Amino acid sequence: MKLVFTKSNLTKAVNIVMKAVPTRTTMTILECILIDATTNVIKFTANDMELGIETIVEGDIIEKGKVALDAKFFSEFIRKLPDNEITLETDNNFIATIECENTKINIAGKSGEDFSYLPAIVKEKKITLSQFSLREVINQTLFSISMLDNNKLMTGELFEVSDNKLKVVGLDGHRIAIRNVTLEEHYNTIKAIVPGKTLSEISKILSTDAEAMVNVYFTNNHILFEFDNTLVVSRLIEGDYFKIDQMLSNDYETKITINKKEFLESIDRANLFIKESDKKPIIISIQDGSLKVNVKSAIGNFDENIEINKDGKDIMIGFNPKFLIDALRVIDDETVDIYLVNPKSPCFIRDKEQNYVYLILPVNFVA
Amino acid sequence: MKLVFTKSNLTKAVNIVMKAVPTRTTMTILECILIDATTNVIKFTANDMELGIETIVEGDIIEKGKVALDAKFFSEFIRKLPDNEITLETDNNFIATIECENTKINIAGKSGEDFSYLPAIVKEKKITLSQFSLREVINQTLFSISMLDNNKLMTGELFEVSDNKLKVVGLDGHRIAIRNVTLEEHYNTIKAIVPGKTLSEISKILSTDAEAMVNVYFTNNHILFEFDNTLVVSRLIEGDYFKIDQMLSNDYETKITINKKEFLESIDRANLFIKESDKKPIIISIQDGSLKVNVKSAIGNFDENIEINKDGKDIMIGFNPKFLIDALRVIDDETVDIYLVNPKSPCFIRDKEQNYVYLILPVNFVA
Repeated sequence: MKLVFTKSNLTKAVNIVMKAVPTRTTMTILECILIDATTNVIKFTANDMELGIETIVEGDIIEKGKVALDAKFFSEFIRKLPDNEITLETDNNFIATIECENTKINIAGKSGEDFSYLPAIVKEKKITLSQFSLREVINQTLFSISMLDNNKLMTGELFEVSDNKLKVVGLDGHRIAIRNVTLEEHYNTIKAIVPGKTLSEISKILSTDAEAMVNVYFTNNHILFEFDNTLVVSRLIEGDYFKIDQMLSNDYETKITINKKEFLESIDRANLFIKESDKKPIIISIQDGSLKVNVKSAIGNFDENIEINKDGKDIMIGFNPKFLIDALRVIDDETVDIYLVNPKSPCFIRDKEQNYVYLILPVNFVA
Repeated sequence: MKLVFTKSNLTKAVNIVMKAVPTRTTMTILECILIDATTNVIKFTANDMELGIETIVEGDIIEKGKVALDAKFFSEFIRKLPDNEITLETDNNFIATIECENTKINIAGKSGEDFSYLPAIVKEKKITLSQFSLREVINQTLFSISMLDNNKLMTGELFEVSDNKLKVVGLDGHRIAIRNVTLEEHYNTIKAIVPGKTLSEISKILSTDAEAMVNVYFTNNHILFEFDNTLVVSRLIEGDYFKIDQMLSNDYETKITINKKEFLESIDRANLFIKESDKKPIIISIQDGSLKVNVKSAIGNFDENIEINKDGKDIMIGFNPKFLIDALRVIDDETVDIYLVNPKSPCFIRDKEQNYVYLILPVNFVA
């Protein structure tokens, strides 16, 4: 095999497939990138058996062939090469020679015979949206899933398509994050639970260009993302997702409108008074025209007043500040509406159109 | 006590003294910043008993007094405050109240009675140079000292003043870094060994402004840096520094002139073929007009040719690539001259004026 790339095309492709290379594995073949130029295109593949990525790389095929190369070394090495033409050649023993300007190296490759290609996906159920939107909804919800493996369903996100709506939901037992996206076309109903790890990796390789689109295909066991020259396939999480509609409610006793930046910065300051270990809540006291943020802890007392618009009853309620910070950080609006019922019931941060809904459970406190 | 600061003056001063707050200590008073406004100026002090920093802060004294506050919390908290006036007030029990816009906090302070002020330094032996120069010579040599405590002398740098020259030397048994600075005035001879930790911290707070000067005072046991509104005092390391003049030599069998960037990037690439654990050297082969960088390791083979100008004999010599990389990184010149004798003798990277001299010991290799 003999291939010629520009440095920028090569590094771009390697950075994409690297997202599916496991950091730790007992199967050394999974630590490799498969470089396949047996057809008329050059295809790079990496696959950790949960998540697989395949991308077509621009380059010249001087001689067809394929080889599997250690992903980490290959990626680090080509990054350090001069910005010029890079030649990759292999011999019958899969020894790879890489040349660029005055640099020449030999490294041992593998035949790639035992490499797992991506599973074939039947392209039936499909939706199309912009890469930008997909990245946004992932980043605006993914923080609220659980990192712990003891409830597998909580480590993924629900993707629910109905008509021209995509709803993405993440939850961890203390909070729920929901984002709704309007799609350009109308679709049949689809429900799938996508692993958080997959969403985290794909959000890093989606384009920020608002015009660039992504096709998303669903089967019973897999999700396939197709964009630019890249395919990303992931297993789905099996099971029935939580019935979140029962937990959502539009009733409230108190509604406030507050400047998002002021509220976020105040909670961020208050958070310094809370140590991970003692799990103290911050206490929010809402009265006409003002919201008070208060913490009393071993470190000291914190008090801050923020101007608000209020409808309904006064209320005093405790929260884990982290949950408020996480939700407020991903809201782009200048002001946010917050709906409350009583100190034992969840609060909702949501906009009028319910493009976003953040449910946060309160924490008991001793006044 | 009641003091009023702007946020920027307060954070600047806290960031300076924080450099002398130990990350771990059993004496909680050392984790504090002493805020002393008993006179007509506001003075912040931190002192880990090896290194002490004192800085005068701009601000209004409404009521005189002093207090010691937990440095880490105070620093983090004021950083998160809005960019506005900050009031610090203490009561008779050293409870501190900090107010800024709508935020108000109370934290427990300490009287500061048991706080260790900086030792009084007799200002006799002094040199003056620009803060920029001092920062540069520290950054250009400090990497070559030893991090291990088993030879205390190697954890510091020699500061040697003679006439109008300051020589700064760091070494770790495998290499020596020397920088010479010409001073504007002439001085008597001074020799002092300054702890690496002190130099590392002071290089972070020295100004990058070429006009700003620093006075450096030496006593038998201490060094004092005086600049802007700040004093930094450090203990010196006791003992006689290594006799490095015996190790330096201007004789050579081979002299090359090489493009610094090309050489550095080539070694950086070659370094990927060497694992920390196997301690393989890179092998440099010098012939007329060309320098070859070569590594043979378990990872593979690396070869690169770089054009050079050569005087004298051909030579083949092995090096730890890290030592070459460290030295080349801090040299600003476009080309460097390298002097070699034989594969067992140190090489020297130095400029004609000997503003810098980097000695690097070679490593044995099997050709």
